[in-house]
Amino acid sequence: MHTDRRNWLKQVTLLATALGTEPLLFANGLPHPPPADKRILLNSNENPYGPSPLAQKAILDYYLRSNRYPDDMLTSLKKKLATHWSVNEENILLGAGSSEIIGLALIAAGTKFRKQLLAADPAYSVWQNQASALGYDAVKIPLNKDRKYDLDEMLARTKYIPATFIYICNPNNPTGTYVDPDAIRRFTETISKDSYIFIDEAYTEYADLPSLASLAISHPNIIVAKTFSKVYGLAGARIGYAMAHPSTIKKLASFQPWPDGSVSTVGAAAAIASLDDMDFVKDCKKKNEDIKDSCYKTFKEIGLDYIPSSANFILFNIGKIKKDLTREMQARNIYVQYRDHFGGKWCRVSMGTEEEMLEFTKALKEIAA
Amino acid sequence: MHTDRRNWLKQVTLLATALGTEPLLFANGLPHPPPADKRILLNSNENPYGPSPLAQKAILDYYLRSNRYPDDMLTSLKKKLATHWSVNEENILLGAGSSEIIGLALIAAGTKFRKQLLAADPAYSVWQNQASALGYDAVKIPLNKDRKYDLDEMLARTKYIPATFIYICNPNNPTGTYVDPDAIRRFTETISKDSYIFIDEAYTEYADLPSLASLAISHPNIIVAKTFSKVYGLAGARIGYAMAHPSTIKKLASFQPWPDGSVSTVGAAAAIASLDDMDFVKDCKKKNEDIKDSCYKTFKEIGLDYIPSSANFILFNIGKIKKDLTREMQARNIYVQYRDHFGGKWCRVSMGTEEEMLEFTKALKEIAA
Repeated sequence: MHTDRRNWLKQVTLLATALGTEPLLFANGLPHPPPADKRILLNSNENPYGPSPLAQKAILDYYLRSNRYPDDMLTSLKKKLATHWSVNEENILLGAGSSEIIGLALIAAGTKFRKQLLAADPAYSVWQNQASALGYDAVKIPLNKDRKYDLDEMLARTKYIPATFIYICNPNNPTGTYVDPDAIRRFTETISKDSYIFIDEAYTEYADLPSLASLAISHPNIIVAKTFSKVYGLAGARIGYAMAHPSTIKKLASFQPWPDGSVSTVGAAAAIASLDDMDFVKDCKKKNEDIKDSCYKTFKEIGLDYIPSSANFILFNIGKIKKDLTREMQARNIYVQYRDHFGGKWCRVSMGTEEEMLEFTKALKEIAA
Repeated sequence: MHTDRRNWLKQVTLLATALGTEPLLFANGLPHPPPADKRILLNSNENPYGPSPLAQKAILDYYLRSNRYPDDMLTSLKKKLATHWSVNEENILLGAGSSEIIGLALIAAGTKFRKQLLAADPAYSVWQNQASALGYDAVKIPLNKDRKYDLDEMLARTKYIPATFIYICNPNNPTGTYVDPDAIRRFTETISKDSYIFIDEAYTEYADLPSLASLAISHPNIIVAKTFSKVYGLAGARIGYAMAHPSTIKKLASFQPWPDGSVSTVGAAAAIASLDDMDFVKDCKKKNEDIKDSCYKTFKEIGLDYIPSSANFILFNIGKIKKDLTREMQARNIYVQYRDHFGGKWCRVSMGTEEEMLEFTKALKEIAA
């Protein structure tokens, strides 16, 4: 134990030296961390302020324990989440981001020979390559004229071909729009119990939406997925989780090599601490709203259409911009996502810090000029 | 950036205070890290000395970047591994421990209607629950009289019913024995190319065995899995990887929601740094050998049979011990694994530090008396 403390102090000294006048030295082959990394990353809907102070402290408290399997940390995280959401531990399954949870749900839902997934267009779709590898055919229902989920059309579609897996991202990425959780609740009541309904709540905190966890835990065909990657500022820690009926959690867990076992020791520690850091969450949300407002102002000034967003990113139309926006942005070290949607050209920009967004709006004005 | 540095210094001060005279304060719901955690954990084949000094430094260098998705860190880790093993990046796939890799291989191999897995008994088998959920039937071939893989018998078995998935753990857990990698190489030549052969090399470093990576990358039906959980001391960071033919890697990756994406930012940083810390690996191996020798001496003194091990654990026979060994050990805060094997009672003990093993041997003598 004393050795641990000595080692730690040695490292702190080393690190302090590194942060002082001497150049930062990193292990061979590592990319530079900030402050050496000067990129302005507005392309992945990350939280620019995270991890939270308590999460940072938790990582420092637990990193020396990274040589031990995380079992007891995972149990603690599940306990903490159960309390946080007023559910039971048996209603929760951990994964390496909510991505892993989507994959498990696809496997669990897809035991039948014919498999069809129903999703919106545009919506978060990175997981659809995995769905395709697992033998799913995809049917995509366009968002309605308000750029929101067209639940009526989705329901109508399932009358002809029953969907094995229905994916609802609410608020939706990349539009930042949402449908009333009560409308989703009513929608689930009309869908066959043989269809899995997957509700991705990655951005609910930003939108101040209530979780549909209580719906999921009482209906074996409904899964709610949450993540620590967004408002909790832990995208790099790879932590997501499912909330569902115990029988569904058991089924999903059976497709993990080691149930819950993808989450790291420091990741679990940071996640647990994050749930105690509501000041940080509140502060991030406030800053996010202010920065969105100033972005809207810029879009209006330049005369660009945008979709008012309830999340930490905005989709704006760049049809009027003659130059190659993403390329011009990258030349200025700013990273955004180009998107082909609604028959037009769009850009999805994640909300960075105030300084970063000043750089972004300055660049946008130059490029649009 | 300056804010980051200020935050960091604030935390260091906070942590230093915590390590001084004041009681350690952890976020609500977190289990105690060492030194408050007094358990002697000899039950999971972890490296008691890890993470390595360079890995620790890498975690401290990168933890503030945990709010960013790890993409570029994962690319760096794959590059580093490719150089380390003299293979190409396209021969490597990352996972949350080699457990995730086993699962992906089971899915990739198991597209056929009838699925059979072939494994040894005893062998590492945690993943077999997942195999069963995926529809596999298991056939287990007992180890031979030398407690080693019976490759002839495994081959004979595949003549009757072709195996979809053949699992070889070399050195084997829980026996610590190994078969000559050349024998495995010859074995793979006799097996139908329709069978996936999965070679788990979690413990090769301890045994000083060469990797069969070169075999795997040139044969699409062979996968080699490695982990950072053992000699690299990063079990809690959840990092494993496959080495295989590019077409196989592509297939395995197609079943991940986001290829390589389960590994965390600090985990990837620690893993990259670990591969530069060969002094640490050498030192851990030396200590492991010395401690195994002193364990063997104790087993002989007490008159307990054991299986000489080429890994970081020993399986010893406890048939002669009247008391409930695991329970008695736990009463002394020592954790080991009870095992029913070869029609008898055994215990698998992982090698801890010298101090920990003195506690273990003292306890064993008391319990066996």
